[in-house]
Amino acid sequence: MVRQVVYQRLGKPLPRTAGAPNPLIVNVSARHCHLTPEAVEALFGPGHKLTVFKWLYQEGQFAAKETLTLVGPRSRVISNLRILGPCRSLNQIELAYTDAIALGVDIPLRLSGNIADTPGCMLMGPHGFFAMKTGVIRALRHVHMHPDDAAFYGVKGGDEMRLKIGGPCAVTLDKMLCRVDPSFKLEVHIDTDEGNACDLQPDTPCELMR
Amino acid sequence: MVRQVVYQRLGKPLPRTAGAPNPLIVNVSARHCHLTPEAVEALFGPGHKLTVFKWLYQEGQFAAKETLTLVGPRSRVISNLRILGPCRSLNQIELAYTDAIALGVDIPLRLSGNIADTPGCMLMGPHGFFAMKTGVIRALRHVHMHPDDAAFYGVKGGDEMRLKIGGPCAVTLDKMLCRVDPSFKLEVHIDTDEGNACDLQPDTPCELMR
Repeated sequence: MVRQVVYQRLGKPLPRTAGAPNPLIVNVSARHCHLTPEAVEALFGPGHKLTVFKWLYQEGQFAAKETLTLVGPRSRVISNLRILGPCRSLNQIELAYTDAIALGVDIPLRLSGNIADTPGCMLMGPHGFFAMKTGVIRALRHVHMHPDDAAFYGVKGGDEMRLKIGGPCAVTLDKMLCRVDPSFKLEVHIDTDEGNACDLQPDTPCELMR
Repeated sequence: MVRQVVYQRLGKPLPRTAGAPNPLIVNVSARHCHLTPEAVEALFGPGHKLTVFKWLYQEGQFAAKETLTLVGPRSRVISNLRILGPCRSLNQIELAYTDAIALGVDIPLRLSGNIADTPGCMLMGPHGFFAMKTGVIRALRHVHMHPDDAAFYGVKGGDEMRLKIGGPCAVTLDKMLCRVDPSFKLEVHIDTDEGNACDLQPDTPCELMR
């Protein structure tokens, strides 16, 4: 309502997004990994369960206290790789291309969960090693949407949107995949290469467009 | 002329850029450093001159065989930092934000050469150390243009253009600064964060727009 009055006083029409059901949140996903309960036990010991370090914006999702060491095929290492919980039915590591180049692995761009014919790697935890045969990807940039958000923006699951990011290193990211589910809250996930390319800060203006 | 005939046969108008005086080259600048002759001597020994490893696209510019170790304020290190020649009148290091975060330095976005009040660092070479008081920056994304290119695109030095990059991670980079000089060849320089955000490959379609 305050916003409505301010725009009225300025003699300007209310921006279209002022009527959006939810505010737009844009978060940078640093490299991380999703694990099965079996992988967690192999790496951290029998019966081990992930512990919550920080709750994430999507309901029930968390960054775990547990981290791993990733060993690449050229004996290069990424330390302190964060695990996200809860456990899933497959093991998947999401890296930025800068990480993959540092590691010496050529990784494909994939929708999360679609890991057929992707490279694997070796994981090292305090209890032991775990060999991932596949699962190292760069995740497709995407936006989580509640059906109300999808209706407001006029899109459906699988559609692509654009994210216009302002500031001194302004960028527009195309091919932002819409993922719609009643359990989702409106949130864009980009990786560290994308976040650093545009120097995304908490106050950087962002606009989601069809 | 071949292009002209192909488009004619297809019954399509020739794209506007087909009439451009020069092809558009987009290159990723990995982190690198520019040094004064004094810094080169301090690091590599009295009388040492940079040697050519690879000529770059801009006339007279080269990647030197010589590399350095950069030591950041938190004892973190970047090895094999490439020196670009020839020597300049000031010392400057250009990093991507991902590099700066790894190093633990907060670096500003600057036009090359504008290094007042920027952070410094310690450089280590085979002969000795060299302390840079200032000069560590992220370089503003920019396009080198010959006056003919500027005339074709209808811009002048200091103007900002946009670079539309296609492919599976398509991105449009705004605020691409025009630098116009009769010695320049048409070439866009982006950094590794920008190049990895859009996965720039030799065959990725790129278009420069006002």
